[in-house]
Amino acid sequence: MTVRTPDPNPGWLHETELAAARARLPMVYVEALPVRLDSHGRVIQLGLLYRADASGTFRYSFVSGRVRYMQPVREALMMHLEKDLGPLAMPQLPMTLTPFTVAEYFPYGSTSGLTDERQHAVALCYVVPVRGDTQPREDALQVAWLTPDEALSADVQNEFEGGRAQLVTQAMAWANWGI
Amino acid sequence: MTVRTPDPNPGWLHETELAAARARLPMVYVEALPVRLDSHGRVIQLGLLYRADASGTFRYSFVSGRVRYMQPVREALMMHLEKDLGPLAMPQLPMTLTPFTVAEYFPYGSTSGLTDERQHAVALCYVVPVRGDTQPREDALQVAWLTPDEALSADVQNEFEGGRAQLVTQAMAWANWGI
Amino acid sequence: MTVRTPDPNPGWLHETELAAARARLPMVYVEALPVRLDSHGRVIQLGLLYRADASGTFRYSFVSGRVRYMQPVREALMMHLEKDLGPLAMPQLPMTLTPFTVAEYFPYGSTSGLTDERQHAVALCYVVPVRGDTQPREDALQVAWLTPDEALSADVQNEFEGGRAQLVTQAMAWANWGI
Amino acid sequence: MTVRTPDPNPGWLHETELAAARARLPMVYVEALPVRLDSHGRVIQLGLLYRADASGTFRYSFVSGRVRYMQPVREALMMHLEKDLGPLAMPQLPMTLTPFTVAEYFPYGSTSGLTDERQHAVALCYVVPVRGDTQPREDALQVAWLTPDEALSADVQNEFEGGRAQLVTQAMAWANWGI
Repeated sequence: MTVRTPDPNPGWLHETELAAARARLPMVYVEALPVRLDSHGRVIQLGLLYRADASGTFRYSFVSGRVRYMQPVREALMMHLEKDLGPLAMPQLPMTLTPFTVAEYFPYGSTSGLTDERQHAVALCYVVPVRGDTQPREDALQVAWLTPDEALSADVQNEFEGGRAQLVTQAMAWANWGI
Repeated sequence: MTVRTPDPNPGWLHETELAAARARLPMVYVEALPVRLDSHGRVIQLGLLYRADASGTFRYSFVSGRVRYMQPVREALMMHLEKDLGPLAMPQLPMTLTPFTVAEYFPYGSTSGLTDERQHAVALCYVVPVRGDTQPREDALQVAWLTPDEALSADVQNEFEGGRAQLVTQAMAWANWGI
Repeated sequence: MTVRTPDPNPGWLHETELAAARARLPMVYVEALPVRLDSHGRVIQLGLLYRADASGTFRYSFVSGRVRYMQPVREALMMHLEKDLGPLAMPQLPMTLTPFTVAEYFPYGSTSGLTDERQHAVALCYVVPVRGDTQPREDALQVAWLTPDEALSADVQNEFEGGRAQLVTQAMAWANWGI
Repeated sequence: MTVRTPDPNPGWLHETELAAARARLPMVYVEALPVRLDSHGRVIQLGLLYRADASGTFRYSFVSGRVRYMQPVREALMMHLEKDLGPLAMPQLPMTLTPFTVAEYFPYGSTSGLTDERQHAVALCYVVPVRGDTQPREDALQVAWLTPDEALSADVQNEFEGGRAQLVTQAMAWANWGI
């Protein structure tokens, strides 16, 4: 495992190795909240992923994924955006790597309000403007475009996966959404 | 002056009034550093304004201008971008009003290293991606597109107006420009 | 007025001049939300100013005040903190001038949700930890120390002056207050 | 390994396991640049760690360390500050988890200019005011207090470990250090 011979899947661990690592190390994640902007940079719509979780309940979520070994954060962000939004989304990646927030997910005993039963993850969270069409590659996945008001409504806030409702509030606060 | 009758130029002061106010009050300014980005959000070029100052010396500067009475910051930013870059520049305004830095210009005795002989100004500074063509409206004005390396070189840093070289450093530091 | 002879009240305008300027120019303001922190930097209390407005209604507000001519932002922030919290508050000013948010107050027709009937003001807003005792200099003024939960409750949110409830949400979102 | 029986060293991996994980996964790190502030929040000194690297060359570095499994970022930051600066340093942790920059270290082929031969690490970087005395626990370690000018001088910049000179520039740019 440590010999570093050429690896057909660099950055990937075998499933069992990944499971073991996930039980002992925090994972580096990136998350993106896709948005549509008006001509003056104001957020007019949020693109929330909507899919069934393990129990069959539909949940809202963000574009989210692991940063692989030797993968720059910008590459990871682009990879997961393309995977979840399709190749025509035309996301505009942030100029700065400084995220609007750092999200800490814990499998149990969460002190942040954010949970991920698979792992302890530290996620760099970005708001990402999208100019093109979103076509999720996975059949079970939809992208729901909501106004800020809708995304912050109690109905929607209660359907977020892993406590991410607070991240929507943080993103919209960062974007000066006021009234 | 205080009667608030309809004003053909709302937000504009008569020249003498503006001069008087400038001698007694800090002015609210917005500044924008136009940039071109690669597909992953990295800054590859900075668009610096290049024009002769009062003494005929050419100086680099930013898009810069006053926020008028009752004008939202986003409107002021767009107005000055269009004035200095032309109508086809397609600037993308920031999602957040939080600037990458706040610049304090003083007419004398500057404690910040930034000077503006006309006034005390507090400027909200933004980095603004530009996707279209830049066509300055004023004849005397050019937009010089430089790489980050060029913009941070000693030659260029010495030619900035009012001490703005430090703002270029701050902008590129904010954008994670490293090597 | 523009001759720049020595001025007994530098930075101050005569009342009539200030009133005239306020009707024609945006004012530069600083605002501070005082907080108490635990040993790990988490906000445990917010110090809200509580005072009667012109109509006699008690309202919550922040430390807030104008930046004077030739006054650096840090000096203005310290001056207004001392005025509203007293000389023993021991505020710790921010390392960066980049505010957690920029607040735009309008006397009418507000597009931001923030209002100030006296003027159009652009305020740089900071969260400021306070380690000492707060003793407001004005008799009519109290400092109410509330938990984040209390400050974000509907009861308190409805009593903020000028729409500042949204700024509390933005400040707490910036400080990663989640659950 | 995945059974989750009680572990005498929770969050620690056996050395061989950690070595294996480091060859396959990015590690989550926190870094802190200790500073002393004046009464108005301006940085007047930076506390750089100074120690011999593997080859015996003295290098400047930051407080730096791994985030352990199930450890919140704030706890990791405090743990590493106490380890490197001693129990009397009285660090003031940041109110927000949003770092001034995200640093990407690579063991080879670095695209960021930052290197760490042991691993791929993604570090959340903070500037941390220190009010007390620094007493490094390790004999070989010194804390050198330098002015911003000294820390940004070519002599010192050339002695940083892993390319961290750029992070000093980013930190001071964030803190509005100008002239």
